[in-house]
Amino acid sequence: MSIHLHRDLEKLQKRVVTLAGDVEESIEKAVRALFTRDAQLALTLMEGDTAIDLEENEIEEDALKILALHQPVAIDLRRVASILKINSELERMGDLAENIAERVYGLAGGPPVPIPPMFQQMADLTNTMVRDALDAFVNLDAMLAKRVCRMDEEVDRYNREIIDKVIAFMKQHIDNVEPGLNLFSCSRQLERIADHATNIAEDVVYLVEGAIIRHHPEAIRD
Amino acid sequence: MSIHLHRDLEKLQKRVVTLAGDVEESIEKAVRALFTRDAQLALTLMEGDTAIDLEENEIEEDALKILALHQPVAIDLRRVASILKINSELERMGDLAENIAERVYGLAGGPPVPIPPMFQQMADLTNTMVRDALDAFVNLDAMLAKRVCRMDEEVDRYNREIIDKVIAFMKQHIDNVEPGLNLFSCSRQLERIADHATNIAEDVVYLVEGAIIRHHPEAIRD
Repeated sequence: MSIHLHRDLEKLQKRVVTLAGDVEESIEKAVRALFTRDAQLALTLMEGDTAIDLEENEIEEDALKILALHQPVAIDLRRVASILKINSELERMGDLAENIAERVYGLAGGPPVPIPPMFQQMADLTNTMVRDALDAFVNLDAMLAKRVCRMDEEVDRYNREIIDKVIAFMKQHIDNVEPGLNLFSCSRQLERIADHATNIAEDVVYLVEGAIIRHHPEAIRD
Repeated sequence: MSIHLHRDLEKLQKRVVTLAGDVEESIEKAVRALFTRDAQLALTLMEGDTAIDLEENEIEEDALKILALHQPVAIDLRRVASILKINSELERMGDLAENIAERVYGLAGGPPVPIPPMFQQMADLTNTMVRDALDAFVNLDAMLAKRVCRMDEEVDRYNREIIDKVIAFMKQHIDNVEPGLNLFSCSRQLERIADHATNIAEDVVYLVEGAIIRHHPEAIRD
């Protein structure tokens, strides 16, 4: 790998990690707004997603410039491809955090509904998945990436339990069907954020396994 | 543009259009399964998304190969970038069609619920958006792309009307909260498919406006 390519890749990787931090922060704040019924915070988050979208665009452009400028091959090409994918996953996660904020804004304006406390655990676990998936990418740590994939099962369990509670709540409070739907959406969006973290982790496993294959020339096909 | 780059780009573009056709078919079938309560068709669709994912992966790899091989610049680089984005949008749409199929499968196993007939119009309009967005891309037709963006407002209106009907249904049939939630999800997923078609259309507008700028060298900055 040329020094210039290495330097550009490192720089781009750092930007992706920073973007992931922004997404984590959005998730954390959206969930805080949910528990505190903070409409103002929800509004701020709904506006803040534009910054994530812009950063995603710039990272994509820089990745394409690296491809055009350095014409990387094999593992380096795969690394840039991974950055493009992770970048896109992070943008989707940002969108979903914005969707949660929209639902929270709707909830804050309506009658109070009980938020299942496990929603906080589900959010914490999701944020751990985001952080660990990015750490796994930076350190090419397939073990950690596989652990992230397993965490997703726990998030799915939380989601099902929350939805059961929401359904029970709606059946008992027929006049609160709308807030129930909003809460249902919050849980589903959070669960989908965890799915995207899993996508990143799966990509890291592929990237690392590719890298391992690379050290066994007899296994390389192209 | 070199003849080889031109040929490779044309080929890739055709694959993206075919992928869009597959996504359209998935949407069309998912909605048919919804109206006919066809659990078997829903199951087939839930399995069929893998083919879309595989095709998306291959298109991405080919796009990256074009970048590495031909090092396109300016409008050509933007064109490959557009293909990468559209490809990713189509894969997300395929995922959403699969999500609809999952909800339909849940609905088919439960008590019958009335499907608002406007769901069909919403689905037809969404499919028109997908087709027109791809036509706009192939023909670099910014007018058509802008029309697609306007159609999205109509889809949003359908979605709100359907959700109002679902809420009314749930309030009247408190024992049918679960199927109500499934139907709610179907409508939301379809609305989000239309959002992705809008993303493609917006990207086409950017691509075409970039192309126009290209004919005014004084406006080019890099």
